[in-house]
Amino acid sequence: MSASPRPAVTPEPPYYAVIFTALRTEGDRGYGSMADRMVQLAAEQPGFLGVESARDPATGMGITVSYWADEGSIRAWRENAQHRIAQETGKKSWYADYQLRVARVERAYSGPAGR
Amino acid sequence: MSASPRPAVTPEPPYYAVIFTALRTEGDRGYGSMADRMVQLAAEQPGFLGVESARDPATGMGITVSYWADEGSIRAWRENAQHRIAQETGKKSWYADYQLRVARVERAYSGPAGR
Repeated sequence: MSASPRPAVTPEPPYYAVIFTALRTEGDRGYGSMADRMVQLAAEQPGFLGVESARDPATGMGITVSYWADEGSIRAWRENAQHRIAQETGKKSWYADYQLRVARVERAYSGPAGR
Repeated sequence: MSASPRPAVTPEPPYYAVIFTALRTEGDRGYGSMADRMVQLAAEQPGFLGVESARDPATGMGITVSYWADEGSIRAWRENAQHRIAQETGKKSWYADYQLRVARVERAYSGPAGR
């Protein structure tokens, strides 16, 4: 996924993070436009708090962290019909390898701009 | 920080994630060599489980996620003397903006290579 290149501003913890780390396959294969659409769609979901994304074009390694108010909002997003199509295409075509982790954010610190 | 460009292989949850999202200042300013040293040093700490890192050179946006067995190992790493110097230099010189979040990983999924 792509997102505005900024650390996300999120409310006080606790809240949830979905950490998606992936190694892309070669070539775009429709990934770029779908990723942009998924970020827009995620941002419209109830409980969405923010998203951060970075990808090194040289290695194909990317990390996307999305933030959510609670477990229910993560579950609803996972089951979103358009998102499910993107998930399936990701498994078949876009990702050589990935790890997805769901975590409860307990503490957060910001700096220097956010201090 | 830099790390091998691969999703990290971690044990079954629960464990902890430190999600560090940062926007770099312009220029290297000694960042690259210090980042490599910090990854090596982190990997030697008790409770270290793995690290993932991606940075887009075009935008300066980077995400590093390190994984730890428990809160105590995160605390010990935060207070490591060499790491403290790096933290201070980061605040003064390397980062225009950052967010650091400590989260408890509750569930994890892998694919397609990890399936």
